[in-house]
Amino acid sequence: MKKILLLNGPNINMLGTREQDIYGMDTLEQIEKEVQEFGASLNLQVDCYQSNHEGDLIDYIHQAHQTYNGVVFNPAAYTHTSVALHDAIQAIDTPVVEVHLSNVHKRESFRHISYTAPACIGQIIGLGKQGYFLAVQALYDRLNNLH
Amino acid sequence: MKKILLLNGPNINMLGTREQDIYGMDTLEQIEKEVQEFGASLNLQVDCYQSNHEGDLIDYIHQAHQTYNGVVFNPAAYTHTSVALHDAIQAIDTPVVEVHLSNVHKRESFRHISYTAPACIGQIIGLGKQGYFLAVQALYDRLNNLH
Amino acid sequence: MKKILLLNGPNINMLGTREQDIYGMDTLEQIEKEVQEFGASLNLQVDCYQSNHEGDLIDYIHQAHQTYNGVVFNPAAYTHTSVALHDAIQAIDTPVVEVHLSNVHKRESFRHISYTAPACIGQIIGLGKQGYFLAVQALYDRLNNLH
Amino acid sequence: MKKILLLNGPNINMLGTREQDIYGMDTLEQIEKEVQEFGASLNLQVDCYQSNHEGDLIDYIHQAHQTYNGVVFNPAAYTHTSVALHDAIQAIDTPVVEVHLSNVHKRESFRHISYTAPACIGQIIGLGKQGYFLAVQALYDRLNNLH
Amino acid sequence: MKKILLLNGPNINMLGTREQDIYGMDTLEQIEKEVQEFGASLNLQVDCYQSNHEGDLIDYIHQAHQTYNGVVFNPAAYTHTSVALHDAIQAIDTPVVEVHLSNVHKRESFRHISYTAPACIGQIIGLGKQGYFLAVQALYDRLNNLH
Amino acid sequence: MKKILLLNGPNINMLGTREQDIYGMDTLEQIEKEVQEFGASLNLQVDCYQSNHEGDLIDYIHQAHQTYNGVVFNPAAYTHTSVALHDAIQAIDTPVVEVHLSNVHKRESFRHISYTAPACIGQIIGLGKQGYFLAVQALYDRLNNLH
Amino acid sequence: MKKILLLNGPNINMLGTREQDIYGMDTLEQIEKEVQEFGASLNLQVDCYQSNHEGDLIDYIHQAHQTYNGVVFNPAAYTHTSVALHDAIQAIDTPVVEVHLSNVHKRESFRHISYTAPACIGQIIGLGKQGYFLAVQALYDRLNNLH
Amino acid sequence: MKKILLLNGPNINMLGTREQDIYGMDTLEQIEKEVQEFGASLNLQVDCYQSNHEGDLIDYIHQAHQTYNGVVFNPAAYTHTSVALHDAIQAIDTPVVEVHLSNVHKRESFRHISYTAPACIGQIIGLGKQGYFLAVQALYDRLNNLH
Amino acid sequence: MKKILLLNGPNINMLGTREQDIYGMDTLEQIEKEVQEFGASLNLQVDCYQSNHEGDLIDYIHQAHQTYNGVVFNPAAYTHTSVALHDAIQAIDTPVVEVHLSNVHKRESFRHISYTAPACIGQIIGLGKQGYFLAVQALYDRLNNLH
Amino acid sequence: MKKILLLNGPNINMLGTREQDIYGMDTLEQIEKEVQEFGASLNLQVDCYQSNHEGDLIDYIHQAHQTYNGVVFNPAAYTHTSVALHDAIQAIDTPVVEVHLSNVHKRESFRHISYTAPACIGQIIGLGKQGYFLAVQALYDRLNNLH
Amino acid sequence: MKKILLLNGPNINMLGTREQDIYGMDTLEQIEKEVQEFGASLNLQVDCYQSNHEGDLIDYIHQAHQTYNGVVFNPAAYTHTSVALHDAIQAIDTPVVEVHLSNVHKRESFRHISYTAPACIGQIIGLGKQGYFLAVQALYDRLNNLH
Amino acid sequence: MKKILLLNGPNINMLGTREQDIYGMDTLEQIEKEVQEFGASLNLQVDCYQSNHEGDLIDYIHQAHQTYNGVVFNPAAYTHTSVALHDAIQAIDTPVVEVHLSNVHKRESFRHISYTAPACIGQIIGLGKQGYFLAVQALYDRLNNLH
Repeated sequence: MKKILLLNGPNINMLGTREQDIYGMDTLEQIEKEVQEFGASLNLQVDCYQSNHEGDLIDYIHQAHQTYNGVVFNPAAYTHTSVALHDAIQAIDTPVVEVHLSNVHKRESFRHISYTAPACIGQIIGLGKQGYFLAVQALYDRLNNLH
Repeated sequence: MKKILLLNGPNINMLGTREQDIYGMDTLEQIEKEVQEFGASLNLQVDCYQSNHEGDLIDYIHQAHQTYNGVVFNPAAYTHTSVALHDAIQAIDTPVVEVHLSNVHKRESFRHISYTAPACIGQIIGLGKQGYFLAVQALYDRLNNLH
Repeated sequence: MKKILLLNGPNINMLGTREQDIYGMDTLEQIEKEVQEFGASLNLQVDCYQSNHEGDLIDYIHQAHQTYNGVVFNPAAYTHTSVALHDAIQAIDTPVVEVHLSNVHKRESFRHISYTAPACIGQIIGLGKQGYFLAVQALYDRLNNLH
Repeated sequence: MKKILLLNGPNINMLGTREQDIYGMDTLEQIEKEVQEFGASLNLQVDCYQSNHEGDLIDYIHQAHQTYNGVVFNPAAYTHTSVALHDAIQAIDTPVVEVHLSNVHKRESFRHISYTAPACIGQIIGLGKQGYFLAVQALYDRLNNLH
Repeated sequence: MKKILLLNGPNINMLGTREQDIYGMDTLEQIEKEVQEFGASLNLQVDCYQSNHEGDLIDYIHQAHQTYNGVVFNPAAYTHTSVALHDAIQAIDTPVVEVHLSNVHKRESFRHISYTAPACIGQIIGLGKQGYFLAVQALYDRLNNLH
Repeated sequence: MKKILLLNGPNINMLGTREQDIYGMDTLEQIEKEVQEFGASLNLQVDCYQSNHEGDLIDYIHQAHQTYNGVVFNPAAYTHTSVALHDAIQAIDTPVVEVHLSNVHKRESFRHISYTAPACIGQIIGLGKQGYFLAVQALYDRLNNLH
Repeated sequence: MKKILLLNGPNINMLGTREQDIYGMDTLEQIEKEVQEFGASLNLQVDCYQSNHEGDLIDYIHQAHQTYNGVVFNPAAYTHTSVALHDAIQAIDTPVVEVHLSNVHKRESFRHISYTAPACIGQIIGLGKQGYFLAVQALYDRLNNLH
Repeated sequence: MKKILLLNGPNINMLGTREQDIYGMDTLEQIEKEVQEFGASLNLQVDCYQSNHEGDLIDYIHQAHQTYNGVVFNPAAYTHTSVALHDAIQAIDTPVVEVHLSNVHKRESFRHISYTAPACIGQIIGLGKQGYFLAVQALYDRLNNLH
Repeated sequence: MKKILLLNGPNINMLGTREQDIYGMDTLEQIEKEVQEFGASLNLQVDCYQSNHEGDLIDYIHQAHQTYNGVVFNPAAYTHTSVALHDAIQAIDTPVVEVHLSNVHKRESFRHISYTAPACIGQIIGLGKQGYFLAVQALYDRLNNLH
Repeated sequence: MKKILLLNGPNINMLGTREQDIYGMDTLEQIEKEVQEFGASLNLQVDCYQSNHEGDLIDYIHQAHQTYNGVVFNPAAYTHTSVALHDAIQAIDTPVVEVHLSNVHKRESFRHISYTAPACIGQIIGLGKQGYFLAVQALYDRLNNLH
Repeated sequence: MKKILLLNGPNINMLGTREQDIYGMDTLEQIEKEVQEFGASLNLQVDCYQSNHEGDLIDYIHQAHQTYNGVVFNPAAYTHTSVALHDAIQAIDTPVVEVHLSNVHKRESFRHISYTAPACIGQIIGLGKQGYFLAVQALYDRLNNLH
Repeated sequence: MKKILLLNGPNINMLGTREQDIYGMDTLEQIEKEVQEFGASLNLQVDCYQSNHEGDLIDYIHQAHQTYNGVVFNPAAYTHTSVALHDAIQAIDTPVVEVHLSNVHKRESFRHISYTAPACIGQIIGLGKQGYFLAVQALYDRLNNLH
């Protein structure tokens, strides 16, 4: 059974608590559960991890190397400031799809820049939690040479 | 039956002809056909249009207003220069998902900026023709209040 | 009888449909009719044209050369991106007054820049459809050497 | 009888003395007289004031609050440097129309930026002294709910 | 008894060791003790934490949510680089006051920018350790609706 | 008895009149009275002055030299544009604390820059009228070598 | 017989009408005729097209693919704003030489930038209509492996 | 007898009081007296004025028009922020020489820019009070067509 | 026996795994062993540490204070984003030499900037693992007052 | 017999030695010989000079004044940094055509800027050594009033 | 007898030949002679040198060290591009006064920046050849502790 | 015996004369002698050359091609302004190591940029004359395939 890592960055653990107009009402726990179920329907095991620590996220990405078949990664605020995460993604073979819940292009201009995107295979923005499902789908199709 | 407009911008009609390392080997005709089949599997009618003319694209977006249930739009090079397309999308009610075949963040810096994205509901980048399928899926789920 | 061209750029055909807080509730048809009546009261024939195509607008400006006595031009979104429209206005003898319905200085920073304004004789901003009347008045006074 | 304040900023007292190619040949006194006559024809009392002092201009704008029904304001050079005038206009209820005699977009790039415009209802540029008449007309129409 | 979190960011643990001309001679331990005594005099419990880890600081800010009545936060160097800390403060209800020991506006230009300040209720700069007392006072007054 | 100058810049005389969501409901007169009472409780005489004139503010700062023991200064809009006020503060021995009622970092980007701050000993932002009390407290403590 | 496309962009149809100090006195028709004669002298067929429409120019460039042996292209104002034309040239095999009649480096700074040049094989600037002859010569030499 | 205006801007009245390492130990009164004596030796009457008010300086420059044969002007901090002073100098016929006591190019980068210099005939920087003598000499030579 | 800390930042633990064209084929473990042997030949004890966590690196730098005689530090990606590491180095007495394996000036422009370098005594770039030996040599010479 | 100076700047003496993919395989000596032959065919004497010294190039340009009928100049790297060469070309009457072997717009962004171009009559880029022939042709036509 | 070096940079040898509206009609030879006579009247020996070579100018500045009592230096175009000349002036004890014949602030924006000025004691701009006399006077006064 | 060229740029001949706090007390002659001795100890012949002329440095770098086995190059001020030196280094096969005596990252921001570094194999900064020894060592190791 192939394995996907769903990795979430800083403040995503606060989902459902505040700023629901931007991020929606689901908690991270609920979303992770739904993504795992969706993965299971595609015969994919989805492991979930969230951290507010840039270093932890780097460690997890390194561990994805030759362990996971794909990573769905929401680097959240680190998207816009972290060269280190860019380098971590670059340092592994596993394909990574970047996801953002909100449409970052509608927000502050410092959120329009992504350090991590050039190292990922693709990016899905602004579609809420659905972005995670689409990213899993994208990795599934790629792993199965569909389309 | 609900209707989706698949709208492609300048130079997309040249797909499959050159720069296959960036854009893949399929022709636009083949891709449009596949997207229509995928739409049909979701009971969606997908109409396709491509133009190299900014004005034509604006006209088509206007026509989508109260006619289509969603637009999958690859503005191609106009993404980075057209305030008019931004305003056109802003002027209609129909939800628009922006799609780019290549990972624009890996290319020239003028391709990192999107004038159209803030007016769209979301953006899918770098996943090749699969981006079109995912965008149709995203609109389908939204129209059916899934997720 | 002297002739004025009222030329409107991209998305102005959508007036009255959406974003009424920014652009007001009148349709373009209604506004054009009112401007024609106002022109008639000054013994001016006002011809109206709108296009979403940058090239069409250039063609119309060229035709104004030695045909019209003045142009009232709302380049809309092309204001901020079109060197070609600047050059078109520069290439004709007919005086052009630039009009914007909304106060562009209150909106996104890319709307604070006008490529077309340096080629026009003047600019009227933020006064809604009244801006068109004032521009016609300005051309009338100029043609009659008033003030 | 409704009252309009015609307020002119720095160096406008030198009109007619030098740089006539940019600013025309009329003195400020002549222009003020003409604007007052035009106002009278619309049954508006026009009071005129000019100062080279930013602080004076702020004081006058404050006094316009609940005293005048509209302000026609040419902030001249302070347009491009004064946050304080922006805040003064923002602090009052009276509508303000910004006027510039010359087409500032044809001149040095530091004149393309207006700090005051976002706080005004509109802006009229490049039409010489006629700009003052049009601004009075605009305020008149607004006060009488015309157009 | 109401509770305040005094949170200090990177390198603040080195206070009193070096660069005493910039940061003063007290150690962090001494300052924390003084702030706790000052808080006690206002009947406030002040808990103190310092970390050099951005992720730890985010975790602590999250914990302040619905646990503390206010946060006095010196993000130190992360002030100028961390979007993640901005988002963390934005994600909680507890009011946060940002404090800097030195006058950052006298130092390198990259210290003039604060990512965290827009998410805080206020900012106190350049007053040395006294800034912490004033911030506690500010939160106390706010909690008691003084002034 | 030691003396503090409370100096307020442009448009602060309009407090309580408009934009109450940004600046609160108190008038400047009320705030000045409260600050004087607070100063009296610390045995400090607080003299108050407000001007919309940059030159007046410079004159007052010069007069503070060897006359006042401290200045609480809200330069308001001049904060962001006045090199002259920076130089005036630099030219005197009296310590100056800069205060802003609103959190300028939440507002337009031109309000994020302070020309005056590098010449002041400190800066208090975003805490409303309480900022004035804290600034007086800060000067009191400094004059009495507290903390 | 080999074929060259002489393609001219916006406002070039106005040659000879105005701004003769910048662009010379010949009409486009005269220049096209001269270039065709020059081409004939090299045994090259020169087809001429001009459009003010960005989309038309893209369409013509696409048609040059495998139809023409070379393109002499004056993108005029679109040079400085069109990513789409860059992509169109990039999408074809036919060599393109960019020509500007005036010395763009002597004019407004926005004319110093060329989006199209990186996709062309070369660029000839400032030599008036002679630039077209030289460009035809360059393509001729290249097609015949001269030099 | 020809007349020169020696005009000094903000904070120059504080000369000799503080920052003597930058500005020297003489008071403005002493310098003015010396410049008057130097002028007398060239048979020039030198009138002196200093103000911290931008508006006053503009008024004085206007008065120099057709009254003075030359102006020696140290705009001090307003050099770097005042478009209005630029316009005032531009509005008069009298030649103006700009003088700065300190070498502004050695100081903060915002002091490297002069709005006033382009309107002056020349600029003398960094030579202390001697700059005033040299400026008087320059105007004297010019008035007498020397060199 | 004097002690050197060899400190490596994010992603350096992946050496030898991927991107061997940029970083070489040795693993970090091999390099650390070689540097320790080289240190031993100079009678220096070399302790090695690597972390992907910015906070850990700060902690280690603090511990170097009065414990190590020198630090060889490759901050990797944090070089370009971390003010906190700059401040950490500034806060200790121990001399630090910054090392980069690759020639950062040949890579993306965001790698041309170093926040940490101004706090270090020197920087060695682009010489692969040899950079570590040279840095140890540099510290050795400095400790022994050679050269 | 009319005379042309073929002037080449820094590093052009290394042609044919390295970087043949950018600059071609011919040596400068070969190219100079071919250009002289081409000149001879047009009855023009072509003198050739190359220097790596900016000052030498300035001296040669000065000598072209009233000695040569035209200059073909490849300023190479000095194109992008030398105001002095711009001023030298501006200081002479002889027309200068700037030539670059490679398409500088495809290379580093600092090569997109030309200080020298605004002083030249035209510029030919990216056509290899053929650019020299075309430049000679352009000068020939100009000297003989062709076209 | 004290000695002054009058050093002129690139293109100054062309004075009197062209661009007389900017630089005047005198040749450099004439100006040097006049400056020497003026120096003699102050009992100063003035040696003159001009070069178009940046390296020569550096060599001459080095030779001024402990040989000349002052340098009057017009770096011309190198003013705006040469860090090396800045460093050369910084490397000697002799005071240097920078002179520009034209008012550089009225010309292209790249002429508003001076690399050399921060290393000089002062700068005289826009006063034509008189600037040289004033600079000699300034050095004379300084050498004799006048003023 | 292998040969190294030690090449020093502008103002390095002034070492030991002034600014000893930045550059140390040794003269260039002493340093060259020490580097030659160090080279001899590694069986390397070190030839030394210094010039203030950019063109000379280019000539020497060209001569290093196929003559020297390595170059130790301190381009000094030309580092930050010379594209021509970059191109010279790029044009030869010999490896070049860039050395700076001072830590340029602690100095003016224009010294943080290196045009030459991307063409070198590495860069050593801030270690004083020791940087030269380390660079020779680096070339030695490389020539002998050490490390």
